[in-house]
Amino acid sequence: YLMLSTQRRISDFNSFVVRTNTCGELRSSHLGQEVTLCGWVQYRRQSLFLILRDFHGLIQVVIPQDESAASVKKLLCEAPIESVVQVTGTVISRPPGQQNPKMPTGEIEIEVKTAELLNSCKKLPFEIKDFMKKTEALRMKYRYLDLRSSQMQYNLRLRSQMVMKMREYLCNLHGFVDIETPTLFKKTPGGAKEFVVPSREPGKFYSLPQSPQQFKQLLMVGGFDRYFQVARCYRDEGSKPERQPEFTQVDIEMSFVDQAGIQKLIEGLLQYSWPKDKNPLTVPFPSMTYTEALDLYGTDKPDTRFGMKIVDVSDIFRNTEIEFLQDMLKEPQGTIKTICIPGGTKYLKSKDFEVIKKFAVNHFNQEVSPLFLKTSGSGKSPFTKLLKEEEKTALISLMGAQEEDVLLLTAGEHKKACSVLGKLRLECADLLEARGVVLRDPTVFHFLWVVEFPLFLPKEEDPTELESAHHPFTAPHPSDIHLLYTEPEKVRSQHYDLVLNGSEIGGGSIRIHNAEQQQYVLETVLKEDVKLLSHLLQALDFGAPPHGGIALGLDRLVCLVTGVPSIRDVIAFPKSFRGHDLMSNAPDYVSPEDIEPYHIQVRRPEVTDRK
Amino acid sequence: YLMLSTQRRISDFNSFVVRTNTCGELRSSHLGQEVTLCGWVQYRRQSLFLILRDFHGLIQVVIPQDESAASVKKLLCEAPIESVVQVTGTVISRPPGQQNPKMPTGEIEIEVKTAELLNSCKKLPFEIKDFMKKTEALRMKYRYLDLRSSQMQYNLRLRSQMVMKMREYLCNLHGFVDIETPTLFKKTPGGAKEFVVPSREPGKFYSLPQSPQQFKQLLMVGGFDRYFQVARCYRDEGSKPERQPEFTQVDIEMSFVDQAGIQKLIEGLLQYSWPKDKNPLTVPFPSMTYTEALDLYGTDKPDTRFGMKIVDVSDIFRNTEIEFLQDMLKEPQGTIKTICIPGGTKYLKSKDFEVIKKFAVNHFNQEVSPLFLKTSGSGKSPFTKLLKEEEKTALISLMGAQEEDVLLLTAGEHKKACSVLGKLRLECADLLEARGVVLRDPTVFHFLWVVEFPLFLPKEEDPTELESAHHPFTAPHPSDIHLLYTEPEKVRSQHYDLVLNGSEIGGGSIRIHNAEQQQYVLETVLKEDVKLLSHLLQALDFGAPPHGGIALGLDRLVCLVTGVPSIRDVIAFPKSFRGHDLMSNAPDYVSPEDIEPYHIQVRRPEVTDRK
Repeated sequence: YLMLSTQRRISDFNSFVVRTNTCGELRSSHLGQEVTLCGWVQYRRQSLFLILRDFHGLIQVVIPQDESAASVKKLLCEAPIESVVQVTGTVISRPPGQQNPKMPTGEIEIEVKTAELLNSCKKLPFEIKDFMKKTEALRMKYRYLDLRSSQMQYNLRLRSQMVMKMREYLCNLHGFVDIETPTLFKKTPGGAKEFVVPSREPGKFYSLPQSPQQFKQLLMVGGFDRYFQVARCYRDEGSKPERQPEFTQVDIEMSFVDQAGIQKLIEGLLQYSWPKDKNPLTVPFPSMTYTEALDLYGTDKPDTRFGMKIVDVSDIFRNTEIEFLQDMLKEPQGTIKTICIPGGTKYLKSKDFEVIKKFAVNHFNQEVSPLFLKTSGSGKSPFTKLLKEEEKTALISLMGAQEEDVLLLTAGEHKKACSVLGKLRLECADLLEARGVVLRDPTVFHFLWVVEFPLFLPKEEDPTELESAHHPFTAPHPSDIHLLYTEPEKVRSQHYDLVLNGSEIGGGSIRIHNAEQQQYVLETVLKEDVKLLSHLLQALDFGAPPHGGIALGLDRLVCLVTGVPSIRDVIAFPKSFRGHDLMSNAPDYVSPEDIEPYHIQVRRPEVTDRK
Repeated sequence: YLMLSTQRRISDFNSFVVRTNTCGELRSSHLGQEVTLCGWVQYRRQSLFLILRDFHGLIQVVIPQDESAASVKKLLCEAPIESVVQVTGTVISRPPGQQNPKMPTGEIEIEVKTAELLNSCKKLPFEIKDFMKKTEALRMKYRYLDLRSSQMQYNLRLRSQMVMKMREYLCNLHGFVDIETPTLFKKTPGGAKEFVVPSREPGKFYSLPQSPQQFKQLLMVGGFDRYFQVARCYRDEGSKPERQPEFTQVDIEMSFVDQAGIQKLIEGLLQYSWPKDKNPLTVPFPSMTYTEALDLYGTDKPDTRFGMKIVDVSDIFRNTEIEFLQDMLKEPQGTIKTICIPGGTKYLKSKDFEVIKKFAVNHFNQEVSPLFLKTSGSGKSPFTKLLKEEEKTALISLMGAQEEDVLLLTAGEHKKACSVLGKLRLECADLLEARGVVLRDPTVFHFLWVVEFPLFLPKEEDPTELESAHHPFTAPHPSDIHLLYTEPEKVRSQHYDLVLNGSEIGGGSIRIHNAEQQQYVLETVLKEDVKLLSHLLQALDFGAPPHGGIALGLDRLVCLVTGVPSIRDVIAFPKSFRGHDLMSNAPDYVSPEDIEPYHIQVRRPEVTDRK
């Protein structure tokens, strides 16, 4: 049974209720005590024992066989599985030889005096203990049964405790103020993916914000120099796996702070709130620039739990006779990059390499060539034959490769070559682990700061225009402010991401606190409609302090800490990937009267004139 | 300057930032220390002193007059009021005779070495210190300036601390689990006033729930036997003063608990989280049945801080010759009721009594007669003359009235007579207090449980049908269960309200945990569409434990504790009574493209065909 070791000793789970103890807490030290327990019938062994369960664990109740206790016997023998039962009795030792060392309460059992059936359970469509193995749709439909599993109890209780510790750290230790900000707000400029909420004024809508960004900055202007909130946020991304239409972030903002200050705060926060049953965290977390991350891992959220870093091997091929490599090196930003798959010859099959090559072509339109180092096996790859011996030797030496390793080599534009190898690095790690190689220890947590992101990126639709890499309130890097007015595409930002085991779990920045600079960014660089943000620009003009902050994705963080496969496993009532609540059937049709006050009507697809 | 005395000593407000101290914390004990402070320019005295402010308080900075410090002098003299400034300097004693005992930092000042203008402030439309006196519309438009006031800083910081203490009590002391429940849900049956959120499926809508009621009960079924959440709730009541479209409740649910258990929990919760700068609370809180409350106070949320209780004086008039009293006593439920206004003759004028009488007629269609007890003044009321001397003596004796008091007498149906006098009781209290009588000490907090509510009430539209007095999940009183199937209108419930100083600040109940009983209530008594709640009914069938809970209205509670006039004063960014955010101008018009994915279109009033 999963139990949190961080469980506070002082917590009293039995205050205000009839039970005297939880099922899971009883030990030999309780011998002789009269106890009252409430729980669910887990199972029965013949008509002799009933195993009672609560969130805390299991306890064995001895079913009395005595004639005088016939009614208690009948009740305990007939209560269907998962019925709710209250028993009062004495904690006694199990007879010698009958102890169960696998069960925390295995030394004792309950000699029952009275029993009461609090609620009976109809026949379940499945057994609770197997519930986690059922299809997700079934788990979601009967979520209230799924929640009884020890895994779900552990997940949500750990989440509650982590959040509580975070609050203690922020509020009690560091003077942060927990302030609630509105979720009925207005559309953010350029903020797609915002749910709308019709108001009673025709044509006017509230919008459910993706984050409290504007409000937290306005709180800084309002003199609340240390704000936090465990904030509900909303994002309508249609159907996407591992996304929820509502999610939670630990939202933080401070005045008079720099990037190092926020980073130190977060390191302390995570260290303080880290579950006691996990390895403690070491701080400070390592840091890496955006450019380094792309160069070495082909992504801005590197999984640094294992190596297989991307290596630029262009120099080895400066004088190569291999034509396509020659050609690529002549291109602007043309490079040749390699990663090394340790033991690739041993663990991966030719079919795997076919998949890898196809993946690169399909997803990146990029050729990737495997390179086998074992002399005997060199015949497997046509590319290996093309290599000169000195090129091969240089490669092996630069990559520090072993005989059984395989290199994946690609030639292409720098960023693209890194991206494809970054993705293949992860794919190969999955393949190796599927073959039994341990690359990523599940008990290890690698935090990493990624810093010095670009402030702007070319728009995908029109690369001659710029958009914010994160959001328009991000401050430029102090060394790059002059470039804002000349070459904005080259400006680095004061944005920072926090990455855990290859997942982005947080991001933040120092914000612009100068109204003119903010207006320049919005109007001149981003060509946004400034009117929609006039309140914020005006606020910056009225004595806004320098400030910065961060937001941690709580669902993702708890998901990684608990090691469960999906964020749906750390949310009590999640939506399906299509945004449905499979238990209650939300969203649902409403009557015309329900929407009448909001001056809207439904456009059925058949009458919709799509262009 | 308002300061929370509950401020934890261990909080470090200066961690992670450049400042070494807050402006407000410096004292003689810091003499000689070099400090760095960040704050807003509150005001200047000539070119000699600058008063710097942060959330913590004010500090006097000596503007250097030395030639060598010309640039610092210039900066400090020229920074506009409300600019943000950072100064580094030494804490020194003020010269003898220049101490300011009214200022917590009044014994010291800062000898400044360096200063930096962090941000300049444009000319404000008003002075910050007068901001609270401005119209509410102006305060809301510039909310970020309003928040700098010491009152708003106090309110929101107190709120944060109270909530933190509540969390410690629930989570750390009593093993409650903080669980977030969805706000994108589906329409509750009979749940008017729910905002709708269009989904990407034509005609299907989410609904923003008024409370997590269903989810908290499902969590009990899921084995989370102690749940709490500081939950955002939504209610669309159009334009109502003192209502917010989104509000916060401290939401609690427990399994295996009875009404007394919940009450004890809440008493402990409030006692534990009560601000240290207020008088401590005494527990248990007094309790009163719904019937008593109506009889004595004419309302289900009595303000028990003062007397003036309603007294039934029917018996005095059993043999009266006054015709309209005779007639009324013959009616079913016909009664004669009185309240006593202490010092009424002295403090209230004839005009006041005209207003009182008109109020009763206009709002309740009920005649109310003032009765003057002073012999000399008896001519003032025609009704007084009708009374026999023995009737008058009996009244005076029953009411315990003094010569200068005035009685308000009304004859009518019991409930109506109580209601009108209950309302007049409050009106008269306001009048007396406006004349300088102290009836309700602002430092006194009177908590009261109101219990034994009716389970059902006749529907206003059709009194032959019943509706839930609170919600359909409320359990009947154990003594009244048999009546459920015979005379449901007589069933008392296991609902309880918590009242503070005449305001309802919480309500809860023991819930129905038996599926059959729940179905009977929904289907047979309430005639609701059971299909919409099939998931809940099914959950009750699968081993639902007995459970109950409560929700506290956090905004209202903090409003009463801080003693501010409106809940808008304890919410960082409230909406106006019309539901507008006056700062950002939400809700706002959106483009047709913004709502296109949701298959809705706006019905302009001119094209709406209202029936």
